[in-house]
Amino acid sequence: MIGIVIVSHSPKVAQGTAELAQEMSQERVKIVAAGGVDDETIGTNAERILAALQEAETEDGVLVLLDLGSAVMSTQVAIEMLPEEKRDKVTISEAPLVEGAIVASVEASLGRSLEEVNNAAVEARNMEKLT
Amino acid sequence: MIGIVIVSHSPKVAQGTAELAQEMSQERVKIVAAGGVDDETIGTNAERILAALQEAETEDGVLVLLDLGSAVMSTQVAIEMLPEEKRDKVTISEAPLVEGAIVASVEASLGRSLEEVNNAAVEARNMEKLT
Repeated sequence: MIGIVIVSHSPKVAQGTAELAQEMSQERVKIVAAGGVDDETIGTNAERILAALQEAETEDGVLVLLDLGSAVMSTQVAIEMLPEEKRDKVTISEAPLVEGAIVASVEASLGRSLEEVNNAAVEARNMEKLT
Repeated sequence: MIGIVIVSHSPKVAQGTAELAQEMSQERVKIVAAGGVDDETIGTNAERILAALQEAETEDGVLVLLDLGSAVMSTQVAIEMLPEEKRDKVTISEAPLVEGAIVASVEASLGRSLEEVNNAAVEARNMEKLT
């Protein structure tokens, strides 16, 4: 089963999204939050993201969901800090953060592959909320 | 200038998203969080959303960004609790929550109309994060 990392500039957004996603997967999936520069400060922090990647690591890989801007660069820096053989097992998703994390946690809990989970999460872009 | 309400099942996600969006608009836009059943419990609460709608109310209208599922129904219930003449000034957005809120706050701070802000927020669906 894949692991999931939630990266946001906001520590609250990252923690809250991880909690929501945990609830959706009935805590069967390893979901780790990496938000903020620290627990109080808005921004992103490659070392926090690296620690989250290591905590969420599984044989089946890790999907990273993130908000935007420097979250991408910080995550790329964190991935570069992993041993080379582990980098290929991490995918950064284009999915919307909250909606994608919820979908990803359900799909991951069903034992889907990293690629399948990511595809489903990206599809959450087109979710019709109002119907 | 329109107001913005952030509805999430997670109090942390709602508060964190509102803070991120505030930072992007340099605090020029009224952005109010309505997350959770209360400050601790995951879920949505129509009375909290109603209070947020009233706090964010402006002559130019209010855009509601939300996560999914019962967030929509609770928001619709809250809108029904408004006086009739105010209901038409509230739009529920199909935009992704975090990405949409960030875009919406910037557009709102530029004085765009409710419809323009919503259109820009919905477009955040197609944002390419990795390029």
